[in-house]
Amino acid sequence: MAVEAFDVVDLIHTKRDHGALTAAQIDWLVDAYTRGYVADEQMAAMTMAIFLNGMERDEIRDLTLAMIASGETLSFDGLGKITTDKHSTGGVGDKITLPLAPLVASFGVAVPQLSGRGLGHTGGTLDKLESIPGWRAALSNDEFYAQLRSVGAVICAAGTGLAPADGKLYSLRDITGTVEAIPLIASSIMSKKIAEGTASLVLDVKFGSGAFMKDPARSRELAETMVRLGTDAGVKTVALLTNMNVPLGLTIGNANEVRESVEVLAGGGPADVVELTLALAREMLALAGQPDADVETALADGRAMDTWRSMISAQGGDPDAALPSPRESQPVLAERDGVLVAQEALPFGIAAWRLGAGRARKQDPVHHAAGIDLLAKPGDTVVKGQPLFIMHTDEPARFDRAIEALTGAYRIGAVGDPVENGGPLVAGRVG
Amino acid sequence: MAVEAFDVVDLIHTKRDHGALTAAQIDWLVDAYTRGYVADEQMAAMTMAIFLNGMERDEIRDLTLAMIASGETLSFDGLGKITTDKHSTGGVGDKITLPLAPLVASFGVAVPQLSGRGLGHTGGTLDKLESIPGWRAALSNDEFYAQLRSVGAVICAAGTGLAPADGKLYSLRDITGTVEAIPLIASSIMSKKIAEGTASLVLDVKFGSGAFMKDPARSRELAETMVRLGTDAGVKTVALLTNMNVPLGLTIGNANEVRESVEVLAGGGPADVVELTLALAREMLALAGQPDADVETALADGRAMDTWRSMISAQGGDPDAALPSPRESQPVLAERDGVLVAQEALPFGIAAWRLGAGRARKQDPVHHAAGIDLLAKPGDTVVKGQPLFIMHTDEPARFDRAIEALTGAYRIGAVGDPVENGGPLVAGRVG
Repeated sequence: MAVEAFDVVDLIHTKRDHGALTAAQIDWLVDAYTRGYVADEQMAAMTMAIFLNGMERDEIRDLTLAMIASGETLSFDGLGKITTDKHSTGGVGDKITLPLAPLVASFGVAVPQLSGRGLGHTGGTLDKLESIPGWRAALSNDEFYAQLRSVGAVICAAGTGLAPADGKLYSLRDITGTVEAIPLIASSIMSKKIAEGTASLVLDVKFGSGAFMKDPARSRELAETMVRLGTDAGVKTVALLTNMNVPLGLTIGNANEVRESVEVLAGGGPADVVELTLALAREMLALAGQPDADVETALADGRAMDTWRSMISAQGGDPDAALPSPRESQPVLAERDGVLVAQEALPFGIAAWRLGAGRARKQDPVHHAAGIDLLAKPGDTVVKGQPLFIMHTDEPARFDRAIEALTGAYRIGAVGDPVENGGPLVAGRVG
Repeated sequence: MAVEAFDVVDLIHTKRDHGALTAAQIDWLVDAYTRGYVADEQMAAMTMAIFLNGMERDEIRDLTLAMIASGETLSFDGLGKITTDKHSTGGVGDKITLPLAPLVASFGVAVPQLSGRGLGHTGGTLDKLESIPGWRAALSNDEFYAQLRSVGAVICAAGTGLAPADGKLYSLRDITGTVEAIPLIASSIMSKKIAEGTASLVLDVKFGSGAFMKDPARSRELAETMVRLGTDAGVKTVALLTNMNVPLGLTIGNANEVRESVEVLAGGGPADVVELTLALAREMLALAGQPDADVETALADGRAMDTWRSMISAQGGDPDAALPSPRESQPVLAERDGVLVAQEALPFGIAAWRLGAGRARKQDPVHHAAGIDLLAKPGDTVVKGQPLFIMHTDEPARFDRAIEALTGAYRIGAVGDPVENGGPLVAGRVG
């Protein structure tokens, strides 16, 4: 990679003093960092300078390309199917990948969904699926391609060979307070997705309390940056801007989110999960050349469910097996009659995490049965004494800290009071 | 130290998002970093955030106090003499400590001058003195106090026990591009000086091409910050703002700077070196209770020279020994008649460094005979063919890169042309 040697302190000075780095400088920096020649502390100073002073369009593109070049790239050229992929920036109760991948694959399209695990209050798709007995996230390359050919949908762990520079840089950002920077988020996500070799990509860019980006304007900027990166790299890319101020659906956890996903695949499920699944499926299928695909019918007539069952079985899972149950459950009751006017995503995500559904450190296990079932959504009328939500855990000592996280996170108002963050679920589109 | 535990990522977020850190947070941070609990990459992100977002007065004071508390502190209470000290922010040809310490000590005041080594284009006082055969920089505590009592002046290496957090942080800043930040420079210098226990301190804060701070306004801000830190800690502190656009004196190197210092102590020497030595000596003696000390006479009548000879002898040096001579010397000649109108400090400093007078890495040796002798100063009339300066080195291969550094660094103009950076040497005073 390195065609020329630079002095890393000079490059830090350039970014620190509001200058722009050249493509050659960024190539060298990423390569030198990946090889360990540039030290973590030097890259940490650089990322803070990027966080505070930003990056120009060309720099973000060059950073993304340099991270792609740090590892291998996949290709679906010999597959004989059109590929399409989805990426969500992460939220609370976001299980959309589970019904979405088989739904889209049921139209003969390949959906190679390389997914991750949860950290902090955001859940991970792999953690959720691992609550299905027998299911395994790790596939060999041969298994991966064979399943794409036979089933069409694969949800599995990304290998470490794709954009390894991003993996190293993300770990660094996580401990140095430089996660929420648009140039760094955009290049991190897009380097992996472009390296993965998908022909098209739909981004679910979330805003609100439970998202990376609280502010809708910033989430639009992130979406625009990522769509441009994808398009410039030859990947057809579209983004939806979606509301993450309230949890998505009625479940937050792992096994309970699988259960809710299966309800959606069976033609039921909460309205918001169905709405977002359908909206993303339409975008993915349009990019894959099927703009008129009847996605509602594929949910209603069992085709999507058939693909789900095949997908789970192909990865060793039993789609009919009972999912794990929690050792203890505890409801929280409405203190008075009225209307639920607030249900904030972030504290519910933190509470589910504290109940055991999430992890604080990468090496920690998750408890598959832990989490929260919501029994009311904002706008619902409630009566005193009815359960508003039920907390599940394997370790009852965790209830107290979960309840602590939920202080002020929900509110019962009078009939006619406005509902907080009641805007549309899909608030915008970029692409 | 740590009375309460904090999350370092939270503290980085606070500073990143333009907040202020509390005293308890700064105490914890400095202690945790010194102990290695906070990692270098985390401190690097923090220092870049400090560089770009600044620190409030209270934060700078708390950072200074926390660095003092990271190590031991000295005391001169039992010495029976008033102590006074000088610190220069560093420049090209700055050998002032050499004549200044014995001059001030010749008035019965103790001058405990804990000094450092050079790095990059700025020379180090200890490197210069080590060109004197037999002289040694390392003294035991007993030797140090005994020499303060007997001679009054000591120039020696600072132990690692004073403000160790500063030592660790400075090494980090050096490789992460965060050196030139006022809160970090001020707390670094003042934590060591306050820990050292001097009763009074005169700061020589330089501005211009050869200084940390190019801009006079920024050097004033640095001076004001340091004077406030010293005063608040009970150290009588004054700062002079001095011009470092042109090299100080006629020598840049090690042995040649010692030679020039001895000329000053003998009552001669270049006018600018004499002027600054006298100005700083007056300030130091005023703070030590001798506002009317006749410093010119102490240079003229040999008292300062006697103290110099005692100081050098006390540390094993032979004040009469021949200083090392360079293997090769090469003059650079005036290309035409005229007036020398520009002589820029930074490139001359870099050239002397490249000739071997300085070091790129802490562990590198310096060549004591390497450097540059200036034969003309800005404003001097020169005739074609006369030597403007002479380069000295032990490794003739170094001449080319030294000459490269000097491209455009000096200029001969017509009689009557304005001299660049011709302002007064002492441009201001704070305190």
